[in-house]
Amino acid sequence: MGTSEAVLHVLSGAVPQFLSSDMCSSNSDLVFYSKCHIKSVKKKGSRRLPSLKCSSMSGCQIGSYRCKRLGGGLHGNTAIDRLTLLRCKCQQAESASGVDTGEGNGAWFVDNAKKLNLNGSMNSEDILEFKTVEQLKRENEVSMSNGKVGTGTNTIFTGGVDSVEDEAWELLRASMVYYCGSPVGTIAANDPTSSNVLNYDQVFIRDFIPSGIAFLLKGEYDIVRNFILHTLQLQSWEKTMDCHSPGQGLMPASFKVRTVPLDGDDSATEEVLDPDFGEAAIGRVAPVDSGLWWIILLRAYGKCSDDLSVQERVDVQTGIKMILRLCLADGFDMFPTLLVTDGSCMIDRRMGIHGHPLEIQALFYSALLCAREMLTPGDGSADLIRALNNRLVALSFHIREYYWIDMRKLNEIYRYKTEEYSYDAVNKFNIYPDQISPWLVEWMPNKGGYLIGNLQPAHMDFRFFSLGNLWAVVSGLATIDQSHAILDLIEAKWADLVAEMPFKICYPALEGQEWQIITGCDPKNTPWSYHNAGSWPTLLWQLTVACMKMNRPELAAKAVSVAEKRISKDKWPEYYDTKKARFIGKQSRLFQTWSIAGFLVAKLLLADPNAAKILTTEEDTELVNAFSCMISANPRRKRGPKRSKQTYIV
Amino acid sequence: MGTSEAVLHVLSGAVPQFLSSDMCSSNSDLVFYSKCHIKSVKKKGSRRLPSLKCSSMSGCQIGSYRCKRLGGGLHGNTAIDRLTLLRCKCQQAESASGVDTGEGNGAWFVDNAKKLNLNGSMNSEDILEFKTVEQLKRENEVSMSNGKVGTGTNTIFTGGVDSVEDEAWELLRASMVYYCGSPVGTIAANDPTSSNVLNYDQVFIRDFIPSGIAFLLKGEYDIVRNFILHTLQLQSWEKTMDCHSPGQGLMPASFKVRTVPLDGDDSATEEVLDPDFGEAAIGRVAPVDSGLWWIILLRAYGKCSDDLSVQERVDVQTGIKMILRLCLADGFDMFPTLLVTDGSCMIDRRMGIHGHPLEIQALFYSALLCAREMLTPGDGSADLIRALNNRLVALSFHIREYYWIDMRKLNEIYRYKTEEYSYDAVNKFNIYPDQISPWLVEWMPNKGGYLIGNLQPAHMDFRFFSLGNLWAVVSGLATIDQSHAILDLIEAKWADLVAEMPFKICYPALEGQEWQIITGCDPKNTPWSYHNAGSWPTLLWQLTVACMKMNRPELAAKAVSVAEKRISKDKWPEYYDTKKARFIGKQSRLFQTWSIAGFLVAKLLLADPNAAKILTTEEDTELVNAFSCMISANPRRKRGPKRSKQTYIV
Repeated sequence: MGTSEAVLHVLSGAVPQFLSSDMCSSNSDLVFYSKCHIKSVKKKGSRRLPSLKCSSMSGCQIGSYRCKRLGGGLHGNTAIDRLTLLRCKCQQAESASGVDTGEGNGAWFVDNAKKLNLNGSMNSEDILEFKTVEQLKRENEVSMSNGKVGTGTNTIFTGGVDSVEDEAWELLRASMVYYCGSPVGTIAANDPTSSNVLNYDQVFIRDFIPSGIAFLLKGEYDIVRNFILHTLQLQSWEKTMDCHSPGQGLMPASFKVRTVPLDGDDSATEEVLDPDFGEAAIGRVAPVDSGLWWIILLRAYGKCSDDLSVQERVDVQTGIKMILRLCLADGFDMFPTLLVTDGSCMIDRRMGIHGHPLEIQALFYSALLCAREMLTPGDGSADLIRALNNRLVALSFHIREYYWIDMRKLNEIYRYKTEEYSYDAVNKFNIYPDQISPWLVEWMPNKGGYLIGNLQPAHMDFRFFSLGNLWAVVSGLATIDQSHAILDLIEAKWADLVAEMPFKICYPALEGQEWQIITGCDPKNTPWSYHNAGSWPTLLWQLTVACMKMNRPELAAKAVSVAEKRISKDKWPEYYDTKKARFIGKQSRLFQTWSIAGFLVAKLLLADPNAAKILTTEEDTELVNAFSCMISANPRRKRGPKRSKQTYIV
Repeated sequence: MGTSEAVLHVLSGAVPQFLSSDMCSSNSDLVFYSKCHIKSVKKKGSRRLPSLKCSSMSGCQIGSYRCKRLGGGLHGNTAIDRLTLLRCKCQQAESASGVDTGEGNGAWFVDNAKKLNLNGSMNSEDILEFKTVEQLKRENEVSMSNGKVGTGTNTIFTGGVDSVEDEAWELLRASMVYYCGSPVGTIAANDPTSSNVLNYDQVFIRDFIPSGIAFLLKGEYDIVRNFILHTLQLQSWEKTMDCHSPGQGLMPASFKVRTVPLDGDDSATEEVLDPDFGEAAIGRVAPVDSGLWWIILLRAYGKCSDDLSVQERVDVQTGIKMILRLCLADGFDMFPTLLVTDGSCMIDRRMGIHGHPLEIQALFYSALLCAREMLTPGDGSADLIRALNNRLVALSFHIREYYWIDMRKLNEIYRYKTEEYSYDAVNKFNIYPDQISPWLVEWMPNKGGYLIGNLQPAHMDFRFFSLGNLWAVVSGLATIDQSHAILDLIEAKWADLVAEMPFKICYPALEGQEWQIITGCDPKNTPWSYHNAGSWPTLLWQLTVACMKMNRPELAAKAVSVAEKRISKDKWPEYYDTKKARFIGKQSRLFQTWSIAGFLVAKLLLADPNAAKILTTEEDTELVNAFSCMISANPRRKRGPKRSKQTYIV
């Protein structure tokens, strides 16, 4: 079967069908699921098949990303609706002229890969059919005897709790979003009480991560693999705002499965994946964290499922490289940290985290380490890996050295001289000690410390940002001592950071004129609400991973037990308000998926601390050596015109 | 004479000697000035000649950038000192292995180029010797009859004023900095009353621009050509902070000619060019504007001198491309504007201009247009030019549409709905109307308007930034109507923006808690001082260019006449303080070179308005067409997976 013939076939089935750019070598393995009624073949056949042109470095999409559904009238993305979708058609609307650029993210046959790589049962019923909760649920024998889970925390593993977990699993499954019959993600929130949908009916990349981890830990790999491969397709989407396009490697913030009427056929609809790269998002914020989370999830998938074939695929490798190129691209900046606008991560609104916010740097570091593990040696990757290694060294030095504060460092900053013009300045960033806020002087515990939120010329953001600190522990961006000190601080400041619901997104809140100036008078981010020091249950999972890595599970268990008291009764809200997290957030959705999934991941990891390894990375000795070499080197001695030293421009 | 033979020759003379990477084709034209005593040839010859390795995209430095001086003890960079430097040796300390990458900024024989291209008299006396002021000064017959300079402004061109100009020229010449006997720039300030030098003894790229323009308008091209070629060498310098290197294309903020003892020879010293890329600067700020100004000056040099050979040189073309690659590199951002940290331009300290500050965007646009004029067609430049054109369209649309405010637009923002999630949102950046400050409501004139200082998600910086607005006029980034409206606003707000000394760097000042939060309590940027709404005489020249472009010279003339009343008496300060610019700035240097040069450029342009054309660029019709196409296009219609559209990743 030739390429264009294959394209003209209207394929149907429960999983999406793609056109492989290396189809010639694999199409004999193709399996076509032909249960659905095939229609309008001729019409499809009469469509003009545009030829494909790609510049050598750009990714290119081969084949459109649509799934056709017959019999219209089916709208909405809830799982309940999806379960009724039995008739669905997938098709290729376009052909390729046989060009394989080797760099482009051509669409691949996801289920071909699935068939080849996973040895799973491959009929569509199997995919549509849910295993029952009972069938899937792990036995609740928690291996408390493995010595990793500490003492005094067993309360949370006793009977009566299961019902909360069961409910969580049911809700998580009900949030699943399907594309052509296959699960591809989870909806952001499934709140029946909310009339204003905004974009909560989408699959957010960052929101799906705890869902994905929960499914992985449960042994349900399909949804994660589908998510990885489908979002990979979206990476190559044409993303523009007023004719300006961000880099090809950018991953969307979210996507939606739209059911749209089929042109010229009133009785038929088709499904379309519609990504948002920030073009429609409130404030037009580009999601820098999406691609980084995608890499982290990809590695977790491989480590958990033992299926390395996904990460080894050419298109996946290309996807990794495109993200890395975007991150490692040469810039003006003197800092090895990623420069981003405000709102480019979990805090996706203006909150004074423009510049080099910690969360992005921790995810960046983590993604670099994960990518290094997965990149297959080959053409062009040697330079990339070298650039990656250079960046790892510079980044970890920068964060460990300049972002870290504890009592000793704070006292040092308090006594800084300013306006030092020299290479050897102690106060390199010209921080005026007056920036040290009164709250910080009181708040810093004698034991413990943390990484500040942001560092810019003449600017230290002293706020404690939870996700950045937790992920610095998880990824090893913080040293081992620093990691313990971060957990020490969390323990010492439990009443501020956890209180009645874990976990404050940051501490403290911006108030008064500071709120006016820094948030631009954002009515959603009022003090102690939402991003402005609101409490987010989803952060439980990152807290738990960090605790597991540092072998301090009792801390996570304590937080989970706090959450467990009310989270189900409160209907799994997105966030809580007030200093002590006493209220469900003012505009908080209920049944927020990542609140549910975050809780489940925390529970699963408490049950099997070893499983946290799919997310953690260790400091490598090479890096430590490079690091100590650098510290001992005289900065002046290295200055001079560039000579034979090779540099790598990515 | 072979390459290595040439290298081993210790060349002497008043101008720096470089190794040409296309030497083989031109070395028969080499002229060696051998007046100085030649010494230690053997020692040089015995140095190891490292071979050259370049990755294909990186620039590489061939030969070290040093100039040796015999007889030590000569320090200081003032012109007076320089004039006594008669004995100076230039040498190549290294050899190249004959590799011509075609992309590297190899060091070239500046005076070879000079000899070939400029037909100037080339003996060293001629270069060291200053033409007398009388000889160089233009006749003071101001062509007021050319119809471009308006009525009622003649006062400033009458007698008695010349003495101020004469003084300015003398001071400007006294600020010249020499490297191996050739003028290569002007010192930032030459203040005999100041004991704390900091970095005011350096040649700042941005500070030299008005000096360079003054020299060009005076017909003295050498210093500008030398500046361009020497700073080009520094572009390839190894620039690192804690092992992190910014992109190769970055131009330094400043450089210094250092006289250092020669290794192993107590009686000899050598001159070294030592650049600062922000590694030593207060706050470690990277100078994004340097490269943009460099391109603008390069074009002005060509247009003024009619010597296009400099911009046509392979190394200069490579330098342009390296800057463009850095600017046009793919990023995460949804905006076509350049994303930078705080303090990356003339305002080189924290002032809340992180993100997408107007000044950088105006210089970026200007540099793109200038570069397009100069780029020679050839390998690899087609893609670059296409990327450049795309960016020009997107950038001008973005700025004209979203940065512009006047009474009508302000009222529109005042009535904005918020939290719009859609592609068609009116309030695209989710601006809360509460951000409109009370000062602005009063301040906005009925006639006139301006481009706001910065635009980010949920953030409009409504401050008026002068340089950004003026350069938007000069470059055509603002439309013709907008340009006139900007000048209308300057006229209407004369008492605020000019008062007793032109020209406020921005308006209004940040005060109280706003100052605390946004500047980080910067004691130098207190309200109505320095960058925080201080008044900077140097801005006279950009004001004048803008006025000349819009054929409104009377405005510039009026400003010059205000300055002329006190600037010389006040000893040419760097900046003035207070709301009405009544005081010389608290920490202001005296005899600040760009205050002097800015005044001179304004005077020269008032005398010859036509000369402003070396700096202005016109809106091109292609761009206008692309622009109107874009506006009429439906943003939704363009969305879809990437197909055959070619994209260019730089």
